[in-house]
Amino acid sequence: MEFSMLLRESEPQSYAQGDVIFRAGEDGDLMYVVQEGEVSLSSGGTEVETVGPNSLFGEMALIDDEPRSATAVARTACLLVPIDRTRFERLVGMTPRFATSVMKLMADRIRGMNPSP
Amino acid sequence: MEFSMLLRESEPQSYAQGDVIFRAGEDGDLMYVVQEGEVSLSSGGTEVETVGPNSLFGEMALIDDEPRSATAVARTACLLVPIDRTRFERLVGMTPRFATSVMKLMADRIRGMNPSP
Repeated sequence: MEFSMLLRESEPQSYAQGDVIFRAGEDGDLMYVVQEGEVSLSSGGTEVETVGPNSLFGEMALIDDEPRSATAVARTACLLVPIDRTRFERLVGMTPRFATSVMKLMADRIRGMNPSP
Repeated sequence: MEFSMLLRESEPQSYAQGDVIFRAGEDGDLMYVVQEGEVSLSSGGTEVETVGPNSLFGEMALIDDEPRSATAVARTACLLVPIDRTRFERLVGMTPRFATSVMKLMADRIRGMNPSP
């Protein structure tokens, strides 16, 4: 999924390889667009996804206000652009293409998790 | 999730218990809002979800235009309100609350599928 249009939304934050960005179970009020590097998402000790440049992660806590469902760790050194809930809601309201892209990203995740294709 | 606002979108279709609504791997251009009854979604022979009144299913094929990821079978006699892609895209564009609700539904599915909470 292509979210490079969000890279100018805020100042990128720098993470070193191995840094924990958030942990499963924590409250969360930011999602992150990957500008550079790769982030590993894991749940219950199992890696469920690797997120690379121009894609995003952490959107679920903004959508349903539940605790983080996965732990995010910098797989390499990363630059991440954080986006807060207010901005996220404004993007969904004003940019249907953004809403559709987030849905596509989530559909990819669900398809990847299904027991078989 | 509450999608009762969509029940007047089209004429409900009636299904008998055991009827197959769609099969994994088929092309799909409709999603369905459940007016009455329950629908079972299964993937690779495993039931992944039961969908009841005022919720919806089948949205993934509308979002990413990929084949159905799951098979949907009427668990009981059902009334289902079909919604096509054009109407779905219009709803996302004109009703941010609808877009947010679909995202919440998908977030629920992802959380339910994660190896552990």
